[in-house]
Amino acid sequence: MPEFRPGTPDQDAYLEELVAAGLLVRTGVHGVYGRSGTFEKVRNGFDELVTRTAIPDEAEALRFPPVLPRHNLESTGYLKSFPHLAGTVFSFEGTEGQAAQMFEAASKHEDWSEHQHQTDLVLMPAACYPVYPAVAARGPLPEGGVTVDPGGAYVFRHEPSGDPARLQMFHMRELVRVAEPETVATWRDAWRDRAIDLLRGLGLDANFDVATDPFFGRRGRMMAASQKEQELKFEILVQIAGPEPTAVASFNYHQDHFASVYGIETSTGEVAHTACLGFGHERIVLALLKTHGLDPQAWPEDVREQLWPA
Amino acid sequence: MPEFRPGTPDQDAYLEELVAAGLLVRTGVHGVYGRSGTFEKVRNGFDELVTRTAIPDEAEALRFPPVLPRHNLESTGYLKSFPHLAGTVFSFEGTEGQAAQMFEAASKHEDWSEHQHQTDLVLMPAACYPVYPAVAARGPLPEGGVTVDPGGAYVFRHEPSGDPARLQMFHMRELVRVAEPETVATWRDAWRDRAIDLLRGLGLDANFDVATDPFFGRRGRMMAASQKEQELKFEILVQIAGPEPTAVASFNYHQDHFASVYGIETSTGEVAHTACLGFGHERIVLALLKTHGLDPQAWPEDVREQLWPA
Repeated sequence: MPEFRPGTPDQDAYLEELVAAGLLVRTGVHGVYGRSGTFEKVRNGFDELVTRTAIPDEAEALRFPPVLPRHNLESTGYLKSFPHLAGTVFSFEGTEGQAAQMFEAASKHEDWSEHQHQTDLVLMPAACYPVYPAVAARGPLPEGGVTVDPGGAYVFRHEPSGDPARLQMFHMRELVRVAEPETVATWRDAWRDRAIDLLRGLGLDANFDVATDPFFGRRGRMMAASQKEQELKFEILVQIAGPEPTAVASFNYHQDHFASVYGIETSTGEVAHTACLGFGHERIVLALLKTHGLDPQAWPEDVREQLWPA
Repeated sequence: MPEFRPGTPDQDAYLEELVAAGLLVRTGVHGVYGRSGTFEKVRNGFDELVTRTAIPDEAEALRFPPVLPRHNLESTGYLKSFPHLAGTVFSFEGTEGQAAQMFEAASKHEDWSEHQHQTDLVLMPAACYPVYPAVAARGPLPEGGVTVDPGGAYVFRHEPSGDPARLQMFHMRELVRVAEPETVATWRDAWRDRAIDLLRGLGLDANFDVATDPFFGRRGRMMAASQKEQELKFEILVQIAGPEPTAVASFNYHQDHFASVYGIETSTGEVAHTACLGFGHERIVLALLKTHGLDPQAWPEDVREQLWPA
């Protein structure tokens, strides 16, 4: 099992507060919680605020379930960068006798993994992953490229933690830009500024920073250094339950990586570039609850007005 | 791998029509598709119609991610009834050297399953599964029990098929009743009638029938016979792409099964009973598109008015 990261005392205390208030419900697994109607009202309000902010993008809505063809994960190099975070889907294939053995072991909470076999699906690592092959399948891009809105999609990261802001499955609200290199870079920079305005407008003490992905192992440290030097990733950070501020949004410029894997061409036949931005829904709700208190009814009027316009 | 069920010519043709109209997007895996904004508008409109219909239930909203603690699946007997449908989550635990081997095999689309190990999570088999332990953790029920609304939650069934109405991951909109036996039975029967009115009100040729779950193997045939005899499961069926009508909603009376597993007691200290109902979101959208045509803008005014009230 991957190392479980226990919560800090502050993180434990915040989780306990959220559970006591009924906003989160424990399931017995770290990083997997139920969410109350109040939590969801905030989450959906934020999602709709992003949608309104994105109106000028004229993005095409395209929604995918939280499973991705394994072939796509294999092709994109995800397992080179994040082997430790990936989740894969296994299933039963066997006889009635084997099913009976599997059930018996499982009933006693003993190991039944030998009866499970890898399927052609994995859990969704990021909301943008299924967008690239879908765009590629349409042929060359129209002039100016495309913007796709995969919505607030569930994604999986296998990193059990006591920090309520580090979930194993959470909603990532993404927007994806696929176009000529300059268009994509400009779009990402513009959204970085729009996003920080949006989050500060909700009363959050949001700051951005050049960031790196949590690449695996020693080789990963080199990948992170190169990513930072090229400023390929920005994050917006907010203090939630500390000790460090937590990333609540990220802005990623993939250059030609995904376009090369899937063969996405611009209208003039060049390899396209891609970028995406992602808001971590649950983290933003937790940041709002931490900042304004656990009762959204009592939040400042201007915050409520933005989340739930009359 | 479980037997892939190829689509019938009518099912293949309907899938092709949906893809050509941009309502569904192929991913390369059967039963896993992207959905367009139009598809989602219908799906969300239906979800909200169910929410409005359920107002008298005063249900408590409680939302869970599409992963369930493995311990719960093991405790409830799901693997006895449906070993073939379960999906389990595996992940990597190993050294940098093993990660490199895994990546290399995966890049060539070779077998890398030996590097994956079973986690303490499985995919959500039905939206009601996490509700029972959450209710149990609160202690004895209040008088009259509780009704919980787990929303339109993603669930997984490992049954790859060419039928566009048989998805591997789909939204199941459930409502769950936990209370005294008579209260639960009455609630289920009342909802069966409300649901058929609701679906017929949308112009669907909906009919109900006593049904059975797709239990596994020979022993499963006996379980199905007993379930049918006791009328524990009803379904509402609508013709989609044939040849038989497809179940778009189901109503399940579990008697004391889940309450016994988790120790849920009524206010008077008896073992509670439970029932749930589930609407298959995607199937209902597909039935509406089949019935009224692929352009929801052109649907009958009274159907549009119910899905998207002014």
